[in-house]
Amino acid sequence: MEDFTLHRQLATDCHVLGDLVLSRVLLLDDSRYPWLILVPRRPNVREVYQLAPADRHTLLDESCRVGEFMMRAFAGKKLNIGALGNLVPQLHLHHIVRSSTDPAWPGPVWGHSPAVAYQPGALAQRLLMIREGLSLRG
Amino acid sequence: MEDFTLHRQLATDCHVLGDLVLSRVLLLDDSRYPWLILVPRRPNVREVYQLAPADRHTLLDESCRVGEFMMRAFAGKKLNIGALGNLVPQLHLHHIVRSSTDPAWPGPVWGHSPAVAYQPGALAQRLLMIREGLSLRG
Repeated sequence: MEDFTLHRQLATDCHVLGDLVLSRVLLLDDSRYPWLILVPRRPNVREVYQLAPADRHTLLDESCRVGEFMMRAFAGKKLNIGALGNLVPQLHLHHIVRSSTDPAWPGPVWGHSPAVAYQPGALAQRLLMIREGLSLRG
Repeated sequence: MEDFTLHRQLATDCHVLGDLVLSRVLLLDDSRYPWLILVPRRPNVREVYQLAPADRHTLLDESCRVGEFMMRAFAGKKLNIGALGNLVPQLHLHHIVRSSTDPAWPGPVWGHSPAVAYQPGALAQRLLMIREGLSLRG
């Protein structure tokens, strides 16, 4: 089987948190939203339906685990999940914890405004907190 | 168990195509995009992770069935899937077939511009085609 390589755009925009059984877990470098991205480690997959049936279920289980953890950890008002990929063809699933005070509320975050990167200290703290909460090895 | 009732905003914006095992299938009344919405017929569910594990898997199976059918039927370039629900709290999963010539490409469709309703003849034709393709009884 061909090896999985993280798409360079995702590698540029995100910090790697670690791996679940199927997915690589990324933190998008936008300090305004708790925003995780799951990338199934399967090469050449663009759509969810292109995954094998067992992988689809694993992806949803991982999505629920990540989403529920993030909503509790950040006391979110609503979780937004999305698989878009119009620009980055590698299948990736966004998980964004929304709050009624975030810049884009109640609209979608995609295309709203440029990201605001984390400050180094805040980034280190957030990576540590999420890795511990999801039992990820970074 | 409390009965499921379709949220009035979804009932206003969409046409009902029929039911799969778990989900009600809706066509959004926007002729610019082939756009289906799956609504699990479970009361008081707002997030995917609030569904029972078996329902989660059924939802993903139905999402894949609907998404793959729509992508083939409309020769789509990319499928966009999203669970947002910031304004309509009832859990619903968008499936939008994107093309490089659609009005919002390559940006997200949500929040882009007001819907353009189907003309009656085109609507009837589309409902029939999708009901047949997904073996739905309308």
